[in-house]
Amino acid sequence: MTNTQITLIQIDNYGPWTVTPEPRREVDLQTLQSRLYADLSQLVGNRDGYVFFTRFDNMVAVTNGLDMDDHALIQESVRNRYPVTVSFGVATGTSPVHALADATNLIQDAGSAQDKSRREILDGRVIEEAFRTDDDVQIAHFDVVDATGKYTDELDAFGAFIEIEQAYASLMRYMYEAHDSLSFFVGGDNIIAVCPDLDAAAYDDAIEHVLDETGIQVRVGVGEGSTPHDAGYAAKHALEVGRADESLVEFH
Amino acid sequence: MTNTQITLIQIDNYGPWTVTPEPRREVDLQTLQSRLYADLSQLVGNRDGYVFFTRFDNMVAVTNGLDMDDHALIQESVRNRYPVTVSFGVATGTSPVHALADATNLIQDAGSAQDKSRREILDGRVIEEAFRTDDDVQIAHFDVVDATGKYTDELDAFGAFIEIEQAYASLMRYMYEAHDSLSFFVGGDNIIAVCPDLDAAAYDDAIEHVLDETGIQVRVGVGEGSTPHDAGYAAKHALEVGRADESLVEFH
Amino acid sequence: MTNTQITLIQIDNYGPWTVTPEPRREVDLQTLQSRLYADLSQLVGNRDGYVFFTRFDNMVAVTNGLDMDDHALIQESVRNRYPVTVSFGVATGTSPVHALADATNLIQDAGSAQDKSRREILDGRVIEEAFRTDDDVQIAHFDVVDATGKYTDELDAFGAFIEIEQAYASLMRYMYEAHDSLSFFVGGDNIIAVCPDLDAAAYDDAIEHVLDETGIQVRVGVGEGSTPHDAGYAAKHALEVGRADESLVEFH
Amino acid sequence: MTNTQITLIQIDNYGPWTVTPEPRREVDLQTLQSRLYADLSQLVGNRDGYVFFTRFDNMVAVTNGLDMDDHALIQESVRNRYPVTVSFGVATGTSPVHALADATNLIQDAGSAQDKSRREILDGRVIEEAFRTDDDVQIAHFDVVDATGKYTDELDAFGAFIEIEQAYASLMRYMYEAHDSLSFFVGGDNIIAVCPDLDAAAYDDAIEHVLDETGIQVRVGVGEGSTPHDAGYAAKHALEVGRADESLVEFH
Repeated sequence: MTNTQITLIQIDNYGPWTVTPEPRREVDLQTLQSRLYADLSQLVGNRDGYVFFTRFDNMVAVTNGLDMDDHALIQESVRNRYPVTVSFGVATGTSPVHALADATNLIQDAGSAQDKSRREILDGRVIEEAFRTDDDVQIAHFDVVDATGKYTDELDAFGAFIEIEQAYASLMRYMYEAHDSLSFFVGGDNIIAVCPDLDAAAYDDAIEHVLDETGIQVRVGVGEGSTPHDAGYAAKHALEVGRADESLVEFH
Repeated sequence: MTNTQITLIQIDNYGPWTVTPEPRREVDLQTLQSRLYADLSQLVGNRDGYVFFTRFDNMVAVTNGLDMDDHALIQESVRNRYPVTVSFGVATGTSPVHALADATNLIQDAGSAQDKSRREILDGRVIEEAFRTDDDVQIAHFDVVDATGKYTDELDAFGAFIEIEQAYASLMRYMYEAHDSLSFFVGGDNIIAVCPDLDAAAYDDAIEHVLDETGIQVRVGVGEGSTPHDAGYAAKHALEVGRADESLVEFH
Repeated sequence: MTNTQITLIQIDNYGPWTVTPEPRREVDLQTLQSRLYADLSQLVGNRDGYVFFTRFDNMVAVTNGLDMDDHALIQESVRNRYPVTVSFGVATGTSPVHALADATNLIQDAGSAQDKSRREILDGRVIEEAFRTDDDVQIAHFDVVDATGKYTDELDAFGAFIEIEQAYASLMRYMYEAHDSLSFFVGGDNIIAVCPDLDAAAYDDAIEHVLDETGIQVRVGVGEGSTPHDAGYAAKHALEVGRADESLVEFH
Repeated sequence: MTNTQITLIQIDNYGPWTVTPEPRREVDLQTLQSRLYADLSQLVGNRDGYVFFTRFDNMVAVTNGLDMDDHALIQESVRNRYPVTVSFGVATGTSPVHALADATNLIQDAGSAQDKSRREILDGRVIEEAFRTDDDVQIAHFDVVDATGKYTDELDAFGAFIEIEQAYASLMRYMYEAHDSLSFFVGGDNIIAVCPDLDAAAYDDAIEHVLDETGIQVRVGVGEGSTPHDAGYAAKHALEVGRADESLVEFH
């Protein structure tokens, strides 16, 4: 049984900041966003968590293994090094989707994303150490079968990108609606999903849905662990097995 | 008449590198990718160009104002600071889509994205200084009408993300197929498109298409300039006017 | 009684790399070095350790609280994101100077800093968890009395820099020779020293030595803790007390 | 005849910021400082200038080739991405020392480094394009003869560091007082000096002074150019010739 710990990360009052007193240079915004994401990735990742860039102003993290003090330290580190601050809502549950919904509520209850006076919310609760188990996190790592041969080396770069993007849009929506899972594009032709305790049939179903809707064949490796890194690393190995064996669903 | 200069940036042999000799930690890949993007954003952006992260291993840049020496210097700077190298294909044209297709061909002709011996391709041609004009680049900056009120503050974070993402998937495909344009999600609820010489009717058409297909209302500001920064900055100002006036299409 | 755990960080074969096949652009080397330092600072610092940039190709870290697995993970993270690799020698002792000497030996025994085949040495031992105590680390935080009023706002920038630099050169040598301590310039007019179990008389002595040799008055705050962060943070607070009370030596 | 353009970069009100409302974590300060330096290095370096980290809160840049608009853009980029702002004083002259003194005055005249209301000073003047020449900048690149064999591989790491540091302290002071030059440690055993139009005898003199005062033998390569990069790159090549030929002073 999974017990996923999800942290919603929201940059405080970011929209208004980007256009006050004048629109800021896009290059600076892009640099700020991607570096903040990289830093959060390191800060969370070095505690074996995962962060997904999502919309950049709203990021989703899987934080099994981090306690509230770790969250506070990360919040402080951002405040000390960036012109913006971040709010954190933390929630847990057997369904990643419900956990994120709860985490979102904690932040929304404290004020709007564009509220000038709402700053550095840190609310929620983590899984107590005594209750953590080796199958708290299930991670599924998808990629597109022969993406390089079929798309990257064949289509123009944007055509290939559209294919990947449509596969992602289809998968993220279906995994959310049918399987209570959160799916994130992580570059190349890779999608990482944070899932409840799904079995092979569920993954077969999702893969078939994407193929039907978009004509694109994806493959998945699945892993479990007490932390996102452990689960995700097992999923990567499972995916390698799937590539070698030309199978579509592999559990570690 | 636009004359867009497009550079396709491809990390050399990146897929195999990420799993050799073992899969590398996801946190390090995410950090590497987002920092490389941030650096390219600065290197190109400080010459008034734009880079979009696209798939991260394949990035698209609009490089009006950069010559081949600038490209070579950026390539050198990446080689000096990263464990990977990048290839550049550069092409120009009245249609951003055709320019990117030509840029892609230059790289594909030199070898596969997963060819071990293909490294640091630098091929193509830029617009000669004498032929550059003030309307070479047209940039359209889209956002979602009242995204914070309707989505970010109302839905759970992933629900909001799905809405934005579906709007993006719809817009990027339609602008590509119907209007020869390249559209990129740039964070929050913002999408930036690189367009040929489009008029207001074309933007009305695209906005209506997205509304029909997804139920999401987007707005756009459009600007032109000799460089992506000039065009994009004008587009940002136009978008601010649109927000204030509650209009859907504004030209600077 | 202190028990300092010191890690010597050495970039493998860095000198030759910087000039092969041609000298690399200085701007890229400076960026590489300072970012690598920043990353190590975060990677070690988020585990409550301290890293000093020292010569940049050889950095000194105080790593009480990090085990060998943490070191291995940091080494892997550098390998995954930089074009260079790093070696670590780890040693402990009541004298920071002896600990660093032992850490240095571990690396030197494995080969020259410019040996092409010596890569990613990870050798030494850490303090077992059971033997860690609350006074393992003593940190002294020095600054120059009224540096802004006397130097920064009065002299030209390089004149002020020379004053700070001479104070540092004097202090670092004396603390090393007379008090078995490692002192590092950390920016502004700040010097942080890693010390054995020194008393107020030792600090009085060092401060007087610097005043005699250079005419510059420094002040110090001293803290202890089980980690560099705890000790260093206590030292910062002690220094604030010293500034307020106009005293020269303050223990937390 | 040289005509060096020097920019003094000062972080506004940095000292007070580091301890308000409480002392900030040292790891965050170190990360902030070294990343800000890395960014300035890139921003200035991509326009062929050089930045030296100096005291980190006060940095010295050689900016031949940058105009005031470039400076304003860099100032804006810092403001958009950091929690601090920077002031720039820009001055020129045949003597780097006098130019820096003038640049310092411009900033000091506007207020103290710890003045809360003094922000983003941008004052001074650059060399008009028409007056720039190929020998505006003279750069000398020093290193320690056989530093790896004599120090890094032989002494403990701090002992080696002390030797390098004493050589630097001696050289920086002497070059400033006797030869109107600004010398900066840039990592490893490397020192880069920005000089007026010095001849070989002046460098022989400085090298002998360091040897007399510290017992350490340094070598130098000297280059000239219209920009710091051109001059510095020529100096690097000259230094390589010196290493190969075992000569102590080489002009490109």
